[in-house]
Amino acid sequence: MTRPLALHPDRLFPAEARTRDIARALHAGVKDLPIISPHGHTDPSWFAYDHPFANPAELLVIPDHYVFRMLMSQGVPLDRLGIPTVDGSPTESDPRAIWRCFADHYYLFRGTPSRMWLDWVFAEAFGIDVGLEASTADHYYDVVDAALKTPAFRPRALFERFNIEVIATTEGPLDPLDHHRALRASGWEGRVVTAYRPDPVIDPQAINFAGNLRAFGEITGEDIATFAGYLRAHWKRRADFREAGATSTDHGHPSAFTANLAPADIETLYAKVLAGPVTSWEAELFRGHMLVEMARMSVEDGMVMQLHPGVHRSHNDAVLARFGRDKGGDIPTAGEFVHALKPLLDAYGNDPRLTLILFTLDEDVYSRELAPLAGHYPALRLGPPWWFHDSPEGMRRFRERVTETAGFYNTVGFNDDTRAFLSIPARHDVARRMDCAFLARLVAEHRLDEDEAQELAYALAYGLAKQAYKL
Amino acid sequence: MTRPLALHPDRLFPAEARTRDIARALHAGVKDLPIISPHGHTDPSWFAYDHPFANPAELLVIPDHYVFRMLMSQGVPLDRLGIPTVDGSPTESDPRAIWRCFADHYYLFRGTPSRMWLDWVFAEAFGIDVGLEASTADHYYDVVDAALKTPAFRPRALFERFNIEVIATTEGPLDPLDHHRALRASGWEGRVVTAYRPDPVIDPQAINFAGNLRAFGEITGEDIATFAGYLRAHWKRRADFREAGATSTDHGHPSAFTANLAPADIETLYAKVLAGPVTSWEAELFRGHMLVEMARMSVEDGMVMQLHPGVHRSHNDAVLARFGRDKGGDIPTAGEFVHALKPLLDAYGNDPRLTLILFTLDEDVYSRELAPLAGHYPALRLGPPWWFHDSPEGMRRFRERVTETAGFYNTVGFNDDTRAFLSIPARHDVARRMDCAFLARLVAEHRLDEDEAQELAYALAYGLAKQAYKL
Amino acid sequence: MTRPLALHPDRLFPAEARTRDIARALHAGVKDLPIISPHGHTDPSWFAYDHPFANPAELLVIPDHYVFRMLMSQGVPLDRLGIPTVDGSPTESDPRAIWRCFADHYYLFRGTPSRMWLDWVFAEAFGIDVGLEASTADHYYDVVDAALKTPAFRPRALFERFNIEVIATTEGPLDPLDHHRALRASGWEGRVVTAYRPDPVIDPQAINFAGNLRAFGEITGEDIATFAGYLRAHWKRRADFREAGATSTDHGHPSAFTANLAPADIETLYAKVLAGPVTSWEAELFRGHMLVEMARMSVEDGMVMQLHPGVHRSHNDAVLARFGRDKGGDIPTAGEFVHALKPLLDAYGNDPRLTLILFTLDEDVYSRELAPLAGHYPALRLGPPWWFHDSPEGMRRFRERVTETAGFYNTVGFNDDTRAFLSIPARHDVARRMDCAFLARLVAEHRLDEDEAQELAYALAYGLAKQAYKL
Repeated sequence: MTRPLALHPDRLFPAEARTRDIARALHAGVKDLPIISPHGHTDPSWFAYDHPFANPAELLVIPDHYVFRMLMSQGVPLDRLGIPTVDGSPTESDPRAIWRCFADHYYLFRGTPSRMWLDWVFAEAFGIDVGLEASTADHYYDVVDAALKTPAFRPRALFERFNIEVIATTEGPLDPLDHHRALRASGWEGRVVTAYRPDPVIDPQAINFAGNLRAFGEITGEDIATFAGYLRAHWKRRADFREAGATSTDHGHPSAFTANLAPADIETLYAKVLAGPVTSWEAELFRGHMLVEMARMSVEDGMVMQLHPGVHRSHNDAVLARFGRDKGGDIPTAGEFVHALKPLLDAYGNDPRLTLILFTLDEDVYSRELAPLAGHYPALRLGPPWWFHDSPEGMRRFRERVTETAGFYNTVGFNDDTRAFLSIPARHDVARRMDCAFLARLVAEHRLDEDEAQELAYALAYGLAKQAYKL
Repeated sequence: MTRPLALHPDRLFPAEARTRDIARALHAGVKDLPIISPHGHTDPSWFAYDHPFANPAELLVIPDHYVFRMLMSQGVPLDRLGIPTVDGSPTESDPRAIWRCFADHYYLFRGTPSRMWLDWVFAEAFGIDVGLEASTADHYYDVVDAALKTPAFRPRALFERFNIEVIATTEGPLDPLDHHRALRASGWEGRVVTAYRPDPVIDPQAINFAGNLRAFGEITGEDIATFAGYLRAHWKRRADFREAGATSTDHGHPSAFTANLAPADIETLYAKVLAGPVTSWEAELFRGHMLVEMARMSVEDGMVMQLHPGVHRSHNDAVLARFGRDKGGDIPTAGEFVHALKPLLDAYGNDPRLTLILFTLDEDVYSRELAPLAGHYPALRLGPPWWFHDSPEGMRRFRERVTETAGFYNTVGFNDDTRAFLSIPARHDVARRMDCAFLARLVAEHRLDEDEAQELAYALAYGLAKQAYKL
Repeated sequence: MTRPLALHPDRLFPAEARTRDIARALHAGVKDLPIISPHGHTDPSWFAYDHPFANPAELLVIPDHYVFRMLMSQGVPLDRLGIPTVDGSPTESDPRAIWRCFADHYYLFRGTPSRMWLDWVFAEAFGIDVGLEASTADHYYDVVDAALKTPAFRPRALFERFNIEVIATTEGPLDPLDHHRALRASGWEGRVVTAYRPDPVIDPQAINFAGNLRAFGEITGEDIATFAGYLRAHWKRRADFREAGATSTDHGHPSAFTANLAPADIETLYAKVLAGPVTSWEAELFRGHMLVEMARMSVEDGMVMQLHPGVHRSHNDAVLARFGRDKGGDIPTAGEFVHALKPLLDAYGNDPRLTLILFTLDEDVYSRELAPLAGHYPALRLGPPWWFHDSPEGMRRFRERVTETAGFYNTVGFNDDTRAFLSIPARHDVARRMDCAFLARLVAEHRLDEDEAQELAYALAYGLAKQAYKL
């Protein structure tokens, strides 16, 4: 017998009746607000060309590392899930077979946010009313596959249906931004902007760094043989990105380390970096100095800066070799911000023109380092709970540990940070519910008045993201 | 006036009525399941020879470091509690005096799991209905002492009464396994198995390491002068342990550090280790390499591997000198698994034949490192909250921090990890209640269906431990 | 329209009715107990001379780094808040303008403990019944200013009204203790004692360390050119402080590092320290050794020792240069106690004459290091959640993470640790409510009997602080 699928209107609200009623009321005031998605990884070509999505497996399984990492952890080879390989050697190519394998293992997601997001997609986006399991796999496949062939499931139609006011994609420094240009030229009115993520030309340990630098010179017409030329290339690309709507930059570094080298020292270091290879320490120093350069540029050009540090990327060598990067093998490491950020903060921490939004995967630093820093420096804001912590419990811990020292107004609302387009409304739904649940507890415990909670619910769902990201 | 003692049927369930009712229903489905105790420190001789326990103090105070560490912390000298000394110098020898001292200080345990376990033992095992305090000390002593003289309180009778399906003890690599052999020869049908804990011959900093190595050669008949012979000795002992029912190995290392040295390098290192003494780094390197060797053997012989890292053993020099090891002076230290485990995971992390169960006393790594690792690598599973965290709040934190990234199915149910035999059902009772309480919250917040929660409650109480440990 | 201001009698109690009722009942038993304030930073001259407080801004904004750090973090320059500068250059001097700026930004404190404390001060101390915002700023200013001119708002009258049984201030080793002497000579019966905080003559990296040492010699008449003389100076000052009522010492070190150097080694190091400058490591070693010396002296003279480690002081260079120390720019760093404290604990950890109270801003160490240490060593006690964690959620985390391993009786009740005199009853009110809420949950979950909870509520609100600090 199949299990019914229905999203309960009180999901994620506390069970205690008085608190739940407050949460309900707060949520009613924000649930229909448009979505501000200031940081994410959707593909601009979806919106530029509005092609239909291929099939259920290519939409919901193959690109979602949250999904396949869990199946892999329980012994399902990535080959069975159709993950493409680096060398092009074949993996499972039948989308229905992939879907069935996913359905067989769907119970593994019990208690995870993926389960909540996917159930939302199944029930809300596709109107399915039975739970996913082996016996319903084909029914699901057929319903989703048929829907994807209809105009209502084209990217732009979904964008509009999802009530997205603005969404930011993320592009690298070598991206020609053609999709964003095509998108604007198309006359479609959905607001899709880019964000400047220069890691491939800033991290000397990036794959093909030398080639990236050469291409960076070519795409900008600057002579990257000198540090001054290299900086000019960044200035130009930042301007290009702003033309494509960007209001922010993003930096994914192994740590939050920053450095502010004297001109002669950075010249020397840049020469070494150009010549390559450099030691780990030199690479760290270069990345650290470049964060300060990026802050310097942000002070000038007004782009909001985001820092996402502290991930050991592609921890699983065998998976990296066969399937490449971003295959669920990124593992967080312990973070440190107090000493790491000091050079940058000494330079620009008190400058009202800078906004630096900090993210972490190390929850320990929420109350110990991030909230005290953000509750002091005018330039700092705290990004929402990130990645593994984009989850009900992760959000609760974030608010509980951050609010008392940094308040609500040093945070920036929610980021979905996803390439799983259909999950975006589901993720914002979880965030809005959890923030309302948190506020409801403060009201129920007489720590906040209900009208204040209403203002805050609006700010957390909509206002703060728009303001912090200048959208 | 004495305080009544009665175990409330709703203990540890949330106060909120709807959630409590769900927890009750879930608990009703698992409370009578047999106990699987896959990791612990009970004494096989108890079951082999079925002698009665000596007296209340020797059963419940003297061997329980949870108990005497608390009294010591409040100024009660260990001498007054009859803890035996290294040099044999006398300490308190009157069990009733020890018991009275314990009773006088029983209020110190308010809010601790020891209090819950002990109250269970007093009420359920011994049928006592008043609380322990100075005025009831003698009553307690008399009741418990009288009970211990009856057949119903012999180890085997308790084993059966406690509904233990299987229990694992832990023995060192030099143990002749005579008690386990006697136990099997006895014809008694209780299932008591051993586990292989080779630390004394793997840790060059172990007490009497050189002597241990010699004895290891003798007990196996292998020439431990070469690394190959040393490895053969491990193979042999692992086979011996499997004959005594073992399905697992256990490794208590100062850190989770692993290393996979080239053959020539480990030969050289082993020669140094044999010659001794080695530096701290060489000791760490040898222990780290041996974890990879143990994983290699597990891949072959199927033994499940457990790693318990991160304890500063015997922190209190004065207590160590007078009373020896395991006297409540072990203190956890910060943990790191991402870099530490990489060599082992590079070698066997994707091998479906390996199961490596990780434990930690550093709760920070739950969400930061352990859940992401276990939610990716097929070989990894997460052990339950350990030692100081074998407690209601510890269990709650574990589920809250681990589940969203690793799910439930990358965890392995409950381990009691105790030498306090009578506390075993009490500990499983706490674990079952806390897991039901956690599941009930997910159901009450509409994050899980009740039938799913029932399946999970069964898995967490019984199924996962049996499966993960191949019992 | 203005928002009403009223303190709800159930504030901070859980919403769930049964638990709330238990919390209410527990709180009723402790809410009127006198305040024991064993550690803080009020100014003894207030009580010695009983002058009125100047005006609302100088009482409630300018000295409160919790307040101005938050405004600064949202872009309000400290100049606008009248914070005095190091070089005496002028900042805003109109207290009403400062107050209006504060009122404009009062919404920033939503969800923070400052909001709770301030609302208590406004409602309870000043009888105001509308919320603070731009439109009520002048009303507030007028009411508070008028009140401050009345005898009822003089320091001694407030002390009595607040039902303070004893309060400890904190003075440095060069303080002549004149205010404390004047206070005693005045015949007023309020009990105000000092505490010995010798950091300025113990930390070689302290500002003007050499000058401090010279003054230390002068004030004591000892020859601080030798280490023996330097120690004698400490002995003398400790005796002076005890005469001024001190029962404790306090040590604010960058880390918890301790060292117990051989006599020759500390002589050599002291000579270096005297000659200055020393390396960071030598400074750390000297501070670490001096903690052991302080413990040694405490064993003799009975003064309770407090350690407050782990803060990066004055992180913001620009703020330090313009406004000086203690301007909201102190940021916590990761802590370590297990190795750090071992030398001190090896020397005196088992000595029943020593009480060492540990504080931390790194909540990670609560369950990992501090509770296991305090649950073992007779000399150790755990101070309450400190500074950023002197907050409802901070208190809840402290009890949840510490109690199961260390119990309640290895903690020492509440410290307000503040220089914001009017907030003292508010802070104790929060602490008593949160402890009652925590105890109520244990009772509601049948983990503690209600009569035990009553005893504990009394101990946490009053008894333990009095006992641990020997007051």
